Amino acid sequence: MTSRSFHPPLRTLMGPGPSDVHPRVLAALARPTIGHLDPEFVAMMDDMKGLLQYAFRTRNELTLPVSAPGSAGMETCFVNLVEPGDKVIVCQNGVFGGRMKENVERCGGIPVLVQDDWGMPVDPNKLEEALTAHPDARLVAFVHAETSTGACSDVATLTRLAHAKDCLVIVDAVTSLGGSPLEVDGWEVDAVYAGSQKCLSCIPGLSPVSFGPRALEAIKRRKTRCQSWFLDLSLVMSYWGGGTKRSYHHTAPINALYALHEALVMLREEGIENAWRRHRHLHEALKAGLEALGLSFLVPEPARLPQLNAVTIPEGVDDAAVRAALLERYGLEIGAGLGALAGKVWRIGLMGQSASPRNVLFCLAALEAVLAEQKAPIARGVAVEAAQRVLAASDR
Amino acid sequence: MTSRSFHPPLRTLMGPGPSDVHPRVLAALARPTIGHLDPEFVAMMDDMKGLLQYAFRTRNELTLPVSAPGSAGMETCFVNLVEPGDKVIVCQNGVFGGRMKENVERCGGIPVLVQDDWGMPVDPNKLEEALTAHPDARLVAFVHAETSTGACSDVATLTRLAHAKDCLVIVDAVTSLGGSPLEVDGWEVDAVYAGSQKCLSCIPGLSPVSFGPRALEAIKRRKTRCQSWFLDLSLVMSYWGGGTKRSYHHTAPINALYALHEALVMLREEGIENAWRRHRHLHEALKAGLEALGLSFLVPEPARLPQLNAVTIPEGVDDAAVRAALLERYGLEIGAGLGALAGKVWRIGLMGQSASPRNVLFCLAALEAVLAEQKAPIARGVAVEAAQRVLAASDR
Repeated sequence: MTSRSFHPPLRTLMGPGPSDVHPRVLAALARPTIGHLDPEFVAMMDDMKGLLQYAFRTRNELTLPVSAPGSAGMETCFVNLVEPGDKVIVCQNGVFGGRMKENVERCGGIPVLVQDDWGMPVDPNKLEEALTAHPDARLVAFVHAETSTGACSDVATLTRLAHAKDCLVIVDAVTSLGGSPLEVDGWEVDAVYAGSQKCLSCIPGLSPVSFGPRALEAIKRRKTRCQSWFLDLSLVMSYWGGGTKRSYHHTAPINALYALHEALVMLREEGIENAWRRHRHLHEALKAGLEALGLSFLVPEPARLPQLNAVTIPEGVDDAAVRAALLERYGLEIGAGLGALAGKVWRIGLMGQSASPRNVLFCLAALEAVLAEQKAPIARGVAVEAAQRVLAASDR
Repeated sequence: MTSRSFHPPLRTLMGPGPSDVHPRVLAALARPTIGHLDPEFVAMMDDMKGLLQYAFRTRNELTLPVSAPGSAGMETCFVNLVEPGDKVIVCQNGVFGGRMKENVERCGGIPVLVQDDWGMPVDPNKLEEALTAHPDARLVAFVHAETSTGACSDVATLTRLAHAKDCLVIVDAVTSLGGSPLEVDGWEVDAVYAGSQKCLSCIPGLSPVSFGPRALEAIKRRKTRCQSWFLDLSLVMSYWGGGTKRSYHHTAPINALYALHEALVMLREEGIENAWRRHRHLHEALKAGLEALGLSFLVPEPARLPQLNAVTIPEGVDDAAVRAALLERYGLEIGAGLGALAGKVWRIGLMGQSASPRNVLFCLAALEAVLAEQKAPIARGVAVEAAQRVLAASDR
């Protein structure tokens, strides 16, 4: 124990989250703390709800930030919608689908796994087969944007298939919210959770969630009580539900909510379609550079997320040494592979504020320098220029 | 939805928490975000553990901040220590004992309630009777400092009784940690949870917890899996457990942890015994002033917490109007009564940074002005002086 104040180093965050936090958001975070029942705070909560509805593209009344990280947002969906004995089809194509299965089991539900290779999107045909084989399934859960691989699944199609068999859907939008198209109402998603520290570029620790009318109905019809007190929506609603009479449930993370509010105001100022376009555009530039270096993507082109770029580590290159050199020499964080992909891929994030021309050019230049030092088989002197060309060709 | 940045008003926080947050803590909060697996962040986590051990007065290895508010800290204790069918004696003398009972039920446990009047400490004789009547009980749970009433219970005695019957204890120290003596090792407490936003004067949203060897043993011997994935200590430990190899569990609330670290550094600088003395001293001054006004305390003197002062609302005074006038005219927040005490008491907090001579004098002066306007039966012109005398008599 040193008992000294902690001063973090300055980093450029291009891993799988947290992403770079804008000074406006950090400034909002540090504003004076007020009470969680203060009328001024309550007014901010109302405003926050509207901003979250804008980001999720929904009119769902039950749209709020869970007072804990994305994993707790996931758990909020499962503990409120799964009852003991419920059969839940979980589509797994990466780490976070596996976590969903864990959640189903811990709720006393019966998971049915639909597996796809890591790096591939969820295959709608396999879901359809599983729905046919398990007509008693009540729920379907899958990840929109797999943070462990960078694969994007087709939420609209998967949801349509689930609804055709009277199943509700739970969608993990942790890495998609704010970074690529997500239409909660347009796609009729029943329950969705996200994270604050990915494409919203807020600090980590909050999980925006939204529940549609069918999910609400299911919660009202529950036969058993929700196993979590902290995440029980029937209680949380009495605080976040709006109206003049809010009852105390838990002490909200006041300052973190200031920060999320500011990040959402910034998203609204930019316009969410513009934010999606920015992520796509910067991804094109990064991709041109990475491919010019000679690196290849894990995920096939059509399913590739702009905000999470998983590239295969060249043969003979020391994964950890490269990441350490980037961090120590350049203050640049990129992500390691998770689970089955550990040591096989790097995950380069272009999320929120990190999706900027500065970061793309810097990342390519730093990565090239470190890989060259490691004697990796890469092409020299072409990556930055390839990205510059894409950036220049833009009409943004 | 206004889409404008939120600028909170300046408040003086003398409710039941959050308390006033020091500018040093707000400044730490706003430092640049880094990754949760960054070596510099991991070193800070190690340091944080030592600081939390200092605050809890424990050498427990498993001492860490849960990434969510105090309610989640409570749930962490129950979901890890209670298995379906376990009998748990819950001593209830306020709102938070009731919440403990809810937690036991949701874990599939069988709660046995030992009730005391709200405002009274837990009666050790009643616990002893319950332990004798229920020899199959496995756990005893109670609140050290009841935030809803301001009553302090005798943790050492209650724990000794529980251990004599081979029961583990879970202690709620949300409002005691940092404000009044708490000796986790000295009293042999098995599991304890607290809050960041009370006497530590950090922002809300984190819950420091500590688990002793008997609790750890019980977790290892579980027959069933913990029902929560997010709060499962066997998983959380792999991230917070120390050592060079930390495995990813969830994304830690980085910036909130900067703030907690700074608040703990400040506690260490002051010295925890000095912090306890400061709370006691400021309470004596506030008490002198409140009694001079003619207000009386809910809790009998020996069990009264310095940091939470529940005073009865004088006959004929409009509770809500007084609190609203204090907030709107003076920017002063005091707390309303909770549950059965709603409309009957005010809760005046002297927690952490809020336990200052400035706040005591200001609170008495503002309260006197508002009560006089409300034609309350109070003594005029004596409260502030009574507090000044106590402050002056101090040898601090």
